[in-house]
Amino acid sequence: MDNSHKLQLSKEEMREYGYQVIDSIVEHFDTENTKKPVALASREEMDLLFKTEAPEEATNYKEVLDFVTEKVLPNSNIVTHPKSYSFVPGPSNYVSVMADTLATGFNVFSGGWAASPAAAELEIVTMNWLLKLFKFPTKKGGGIFTSGGSMANLTALVTARRQRCGDDFSKAIIYLSDQAHSSNIKAIRVLGFKKEQVRIIPTDIEFKMAINKLKNAIAKDRLEGLKPFCIIASAGTTNTGTVDPLNEIAKICKTEKLWFHIDGAYGGAAILSKKGNQLLKGIEKADSVAIDPHKWLFQPYEMGCLLVRNHKWLSETFTEKPEYLRDIEGNQSEINFYDHGIQLTRRFRALKFYMSMKTFGLTAFKKAVSYSIDLAEEIEEHLRKSANWEVVSPATLAVINFRYNPIGKNYSEKQLDAINQEISKKIVDSREALLVTTILQKQVVLRMCLINPRTTIVDIKDTLKTCESFAKEIV
Amino acid sequence: MDNSHKLQLSKEEMREYGYQVIDSIVEHFDTENTKKPVALASREEMDLLFKTEAPEEATNYKEVLDFVTEKVLPNSNIVTHPKSYSFVPGPSNYVSVMADTLATGFNVFSGGWAASPAAAELEIVTMNWLLKLFKFPTKKGGGIFTSGGSMANLTALVTARRQRCGDDFSKAIIYLSDQAHSSNIKAIRVLGFKKEQVRIIPTDIEFKMAINKLKNAIAKDRLEGLKPFCIIASAGTTNTGTVDPLNEIAKICKTEKLWFHIDGAYGGAAILSKKGNQLLKGIEKADSVAIDPHKWLFQPYEMGCLLVRNHKWLSETFTEKPEYLRDIEGNQSEINFYDHGIQLTRRFRALKFYMSMKTFGLTAFKKAVSYSIDLAEEIEEHLRKSANWEVVSPATLAVINFRYNPIGKNYSEKQLDAINQEISKKIVDSREALLVTTILQKQVVLRMCLINPRTTIVDIKDTLKTCESFAKEIV
Ligand SMILES: Cc1ncc(COP(=O)(O)O)c(C=O)c1O
Ligand SMILES: Cc1ncc(COP(=O)(O)O)c(C=O)c1O
Repeated sequence: MDNSHKLQLSKEEMREYGYQVIDSIVEHFDTENTKKPVALASREEMDLLFKTEAPEEATNYKEVLDFVTEKVLPNSNIVTHPKSYSFVPGPSNYVSVMADTLATGFNVFSGGWAASPAAAELEIVTMNWLLKLFKFPTKKGGGIFTSGGSMANLTALVTARRQRCGDDFSKAIIYLSDQAHSSNIKAIRVLGFKKEQVRIIPTDIEFKMAINKLKNAIAKDRLEGLKPFCIIASAGTTNTGTVDPLNEIAKICKTEKLWFHIDGAYGGAAILSKKGNQLLKGIEKADSVAIDPHKWLFQPYEMGCLLVRNHKWLSETFTEKPEYLRDIEGNQSEINFYDHGIQLTRRFRALKFYMSMKTFGLTAFKKAVSYSIDLAEEIEEHLRKSANWEVVSPATLAVINFRYNPIGKNYSEKQLDAINQEISKKIVDSREALLVTTILQKQVVLRMCLINPRTTIVDIKDTLKTCESFAKEIV
Repeated sequence: MDNSHKLQLSKEEMREYGYQVIDSIVEHFDTENTKKPVALASREEMDLLFKTEAPEEATNYKEVLDFVTEKVLPNSNIVTHPKSYSFVPGPSNYVSVMADTLATGFNVFSGGWAASPAAAELEIVTMNWLLKLFKFPTKKGGGIFTSGGSMANLTALVTARRQRCGDDFSKAIIYLSDQAHSSNIKAIRVLGFKKEQVRIIPTDIEFKMAINKLKNAIAKDRLEGLKPFCIIASAGTTNTGTVDPLNEIAKICKTEKLWFHIDGAYGGAAILSKKGNQLLKGIEKADSVAIDPHKWLFQPYEMGCLLVRNHKWLSETFTEKPEYLRDIEGNQSEINFYDHGIQLTRRFRALKFYMSMKTFGLTAFKKAVSYSIDLAEEIEEHLRKSANWEVVSPATLAVINFRYNPIGKNYSEKQLDAINQEISKKIVDSREALLVTTILQKQVVLRMCLINPRTTIVDIKDTLKTCESFAKEIV
């Protein structure tokens, strides 16, 4: 009998397949330091390798697997690599990879309580851990795991609008700084706010939202009969790790009765460290906070998270009740997370957070975060002592921006921009490190985001040396 | 030296851990038929098992793993089980589980071309397979993989609004039937449309959108100076598998210049079968189609998909360009998928679709889908021949609705509702099968969604027999 429609492998094949997959992942974890973190390939090259029609016929599973491990996986940046400094690295951890594998293997549906009481429970339990860490009310507070920071911010803003504006938000105004992450603007546009409803508040010399400008903007909007409704603060910014003045913004939100959302997708995790905890003071006053465990909480993609002061805000915003879900009821404490966010079908994201936290312990996570912050400060010291490098934005929450600007050479700003751009190009082309530029106060700078706990001071000094030798070639 | 901050296991530990995870997944695939598909647990029971503070200290990895396999995973419904008939089952397949494991293990960032040329390429390649299957233009057409059908619908509607309404959508009107999936309403609310901007069009006796009523609604709105802008058709509905009259709706969209979105999250995959292809005629005329590979394309959670006639519609809608992404450019053909949807960080969803399609072949997928449609029809025949069962909505795209209504007993509608509700309760309580009710034309009915290619006619007859014996206990 032809059983091909069952899309099955035999037990022996499954085991062999699985072990081979594990072997290549373990090998990768074990040897990634010796690989190059950067992949470079053009569309043409990729088309040549991969472009095919949908295959009608079956192919031996081992052949497909070998092809993928040999051709597909090497054509990706290694975001877990110690020399992957750019954007926001994804350090991940092995236990969470295995947790995700279990969640996928058992295909746990984490939409509603009835579908998986254990998945809902673990989302509640881990959310409580996070609420407590952020000093949010644990009884009333709530939250939801999302696909990432973008969706966490979006979910927050939908909730904010629903709670504060009701149906008519045509006069509602949102405030955020010029350093806020683009996902906030994207969310605002998805929500149907017009450009005229968004105020981009300038930042001060330290890249913090300028409180005076913020107050002016709110006052002006009120005078014009508009309805200020939400401030989005960054904690910290992607560019420089800067935390907006949270306590001052909290005060404004209180007196002006505005929703206080904090985008902590990048820096929120720093609450685990003493220094971060200090910098993040005031975060506990927000109505909603986005954090992003697939960044600095070391989870593999995807895992974002939204925390809110009151879990009812989520259920009031997102509950729909079609007929075919009518047999799903249960009491209020048996949360259906599809009623707390946008996704109906949801994978079991909580499991990886739970298992990695249990296995390594919160203390290890705290050490990991502290390590990164200290590492960036150490590099700042190192750069300041060097005659070649200028620190443009000091180490803040493990981010540092700097540029090649040797003392006594007096290069023009234009030359400096060109040199630093070229350094980045050369190092990326060499594939030795992922180190790209950003723009700060109109200067081209090199930016390092050092949240990988397996990045060492030696790795960074090594990269800086390579940069210096490139610089000498250039000038 | 204390290396706990590195969140690492040794190579041997990783291998042992991985093999144990594989063993338990393989065991699950191999023996799930002998397990009960339904998990039942209250919040209290779950709290008792799982409620803890965040653990400060580490725990041996094997202990955590054993706890999870023994306590967490069994407390979930088995949505891949042959007797999991309710909602939309998630049949999944082993190859895709392994593909997802590789994607997670290597933590591939699938946001931009530069981060992973291979991931972007495979998303392009597999998207082209889908575009071709749905007879969408493959040159101009485009699409994106999402976390699921909810996000695919949302992404479609954001795109539609951006293309058709510009900044002011205060008079724009959306049309969908009373059988449309709730995720569409949720998306509409997220987008900031008011209740008054949504027209719920009644369905005819076969649960199809009533074309006459649709035309009346559009005409009335035009007369009132409103701006009809989008029709959402279902193909098929979650309740009954019904496909709205796509060709007729396409015609209306053309003459009225409306965006034509099709929610094919449930039924779109049926295009792989002859019968489905027939029923879905007209789907190729849509501007956008949502499909949901984690349903009837046998992928594990999460994987949704949006297809559009013109890929530029997506990039025009979703592109943002912050400074720290400035080094990412490349030519237009090197797609940055974060510019085609809402998520910035994205996991490598395309890999599982690619690997499972390569391994089993499209022909096997076609057989799997055809098998399900035939199976539902066979069950319809079986029910019609029985004196106990009444078919309420005939087998359509592998969905069938029926109720216990023995000939000659003349139960009242109220009694029938109570009996069928009780049958469902009893079978769920027995945990033998996941079979719940829905409401069709005010009747409580049992609904089976038979998209699992490993469900056999014997499984279903077995479940029906159990239902019959419960019914006898009840009446
Ligand atoms: C501050 C900030 N907010 C939001 C995001 C978006 O998060 P994600 O990429 O997980 O969608 C990022 C990503 O870098 C970020 O740095
Ligand atoms: C017709 C239809 N549309 C959309 C959805 C939502 O899809 P998802 O659960 O993947 O978000 C479903 C889910 O059942 C559906 O049946």
